[in-house]
Amino acid sequence: MIGRLNHVAIAVPDLTAAAEQYRTTLGAKVGAPQDEPDHGVTVIFIELPNTKIELLYPMGDDSPIKSFLDKNPSGGIHHMCFEVDDILAARDQLKAQGARVLGSGEPKIGAHGKPVLFLHPKDFNGTLIELEQI
Amino acid sequence: MIGRLNHVAIAVPDLTAAAEQYRTTLGAKVGAPQDEPDHGVTVIFIELPNTKIELLYPMGDDSPIKSFLDKNPSGGIHHMCFEVDDILAARDQLKAQGARVLGSGEPKIGAHGKPVLFLHPKDFNGTLIELEQI
Repeated sequence: MIGRLNHVAIAVPDLTAAAEQYRTTLGAKVGAPQDEPDHGVTVIFIELPNTKIELLYPMGDDSPIKSFLDKNPSGGIHHMCFEVDDILAARDQLKAQGARVLGSGEPKIGAHGKPVLFLHPKDFNGTLIELEQI
Repeated sequence: MIGRLNHVAIAVPDLTAAAEQYRTTLGAKVGAPQDEPDHGVTVIFIELPNTKIELLYPMGDDSPIKSFLDKNPSGGIHHMCFEVDDILAARDQLKAQGARVLGSGEPKIGAHGKPVLFLHPKDFNGTLIELEQI
């Protein structure tokens, strides 16, 4: 069911400093900041030859990233995103196998303009998994 | 400097169950367990079309994964690994820019039989970064 790893998302306490570190210290290709008010985040994508790193920074007071950074002040890996062909079919198959889908269970439009869903980390070895329909 | 994302490593509390979940629930291609006594881990690689997931389970009493699982009993994302062309050049460049290399600073042979180094998570937004020479 899962296809490519679309990205690994890292919550960072200083978006500008993190982007600059990936650009200069690690020598990677770093994009421009994008505000995603529906998700409560500002993101910067780092393009690697085979996948992306998504730097996440809180946008707004009820950002889900804010509480993550309160618990992890230095930042940390927040989630990873797998691509699926059909997100509703994937959701139904996962739910039938007992996996919990976060929120309403209906896909939202993610940072790439594609439908996304998140799976409960307790059902997947403590890892927050995003599914994105390609 | 950094190239492809070679893998994302997830520490898991039950290696067999995690492998079975990736195989059946998530429909991914799952390899056989490999013991890595030099690193104190047993690993299973999951092959995605563009990268790999490395499931990590403690091997031996002083495994670095054991203390991670003590703190994160459900498991969690442990590190991510970037490929580099020349690990000694990468190390020297990173150290010159103030990044800390873990351990002796000399590369060890990793789970793929290639030289690897780890960078201090406090220097990289709370993320443990492995560099692997390809």
